[in-house]
Amino acid sequence: MITIYHLGVSQSDRVVWLMEELALPYNLEWFDRQESGMAPPEYKALHPAGTAPIIRDGDLVLSESRAIVDYIINRHGNGRLQVGVDQPNYPDYLYWMSFRDSLQGNLMLQLFLKSARPDDPAVQRAGLFANDRVDRQYAQLEDRLGQSDYLAGPEFTAADLINFFAFTTMPLFGGPGVDKLPNLSRYVQRVSQRPSYIKSMAIAGPDAKRPA
Amino acid sequence: MITIYHLGVSQSDRVVWLMEELALPYNLEWFDRQESGMAPPEYKALHPAGTAPIIRDGDLVLSESRAIVDYIINRHGNGRLQVGVDQPNYPDYLYWMSFRDSLQGNLMLQLFLKSARPDDPAVQRAGLFANDRVDRQYAQLEDRLGQSDYLAGPEFTAADLINFFAFTTMPLFGGPGVDKLPNLSRYVQRVSQRPSYIKSMAIAGPDAKRPA
Repeated sequence: MITIYHLGVSQSDRVVWLMEELALPYNLEWFDRQESGMAPPEYKALHPAGTAPIIRDGDLVLSESRAIVDYIINRHGNGRLQVGVDQPNYPDYLYWMSFRDSLQGNLMLQLFLKSARPDDPAVQRAGLFANDRVDRQYAQLEDRLGQSDYLAGPEFTAADLINFFAFTTMPLFGGPGVDKLPNLSRYVQRVSQRPSYIKSMAIAGPDAKRPA
Repeated sequence: MITIYHLGVSQSDRVVWLMEELALPYNLEWFDRQESGMAPPEYKALHPAGTAPIIRDGDLVLSESRAIVDYIINRHGNGRLQVGVDQPNYPDYLYWMSFRDSLQGNLMLQLFLKSARPDDPAVQRAGLFANDRVDRQYAQLEDRLGQSDYLAGPEFTAADLINFFAFTTMPLFGGPGVDKLPNLSRYVQRVSQRPSYIKSMAIAGPDAKRPA
């Protein structure tokens, strides 16, 4: 059985959500952050990357959200929640799966810049760069969700699951909210109503508490 | 036939390399950066993301390296250069494919910080964060390449191709060099000798010039 090493609050909540979507059994091991906000040494020791999420499956210890999602879907989920190579929207699926990595890199830079000295010319240059990229990405999201119920097409897929943290949890840390983007807001509402999402967030979402 | 919209110098060189590895035909359309270093407006207009690489295949215009690599391999390359779901090293392949996104996000933050004011406490905090992540990732690379000839296992795969820019071109822009890491250095030497790499870098690498 797969063990999810959950760091609270972190992106490992999406692995819990994935397992609930696929109705697969799992163990959850909970780790709290240190007062500094960093992952505790015990968490970092689980995998050389030291970043959440991390899973174990037998002898395999795996990190990186995208790798974990593809692994679970293909080795344990019979390929569900993805779009097949022969489907017309296969390129859309690939694109929106990768979109998350690009978006989160840009958001990380943007968040850091918010706390840096605004009169530093290097901060100003990087701010223009990061804001341009983030603005373009939110415009893309708004446009796409005006044409399609879900990111990869008409059905919910892992591309929705892997991006969703940016819309729900990143704003709690200063990331852009979705309120001014009506299509994205409706999409967040729609996906948030999925029973597996509600259940997984109760277990491991940003407001969840370590099990007693 | 696939058209590669190549921005020089940029990560779109890896798409040329991929096409050469797969011996697939392609058109190359070359775009120079503006004096500011930014992509020109004509490049940014090709795809809403506005980032290199971008390809066209019929009506499809696709960006994001990982999406492009998976698309070309699976729709045009008969699945070559990847590791199958049933292979023992499938999780390794997934991990090292995703490693690049994480590494490049960390390197982008680290590079920006080099030009920011070193006495800014926010810069110092972010520097500790970025340096810790980058150091861990280079230690992982060095460790992995002491055990395995290529990142995903004994054979060259797209996981090597997608990460290679960080080792060869990022140092030209201030990223970490590989000289102090013997396993990584030998690996860079080994991969650099591939005929398709040599050919693709002559066409679209950091020293290549726009075709006359």
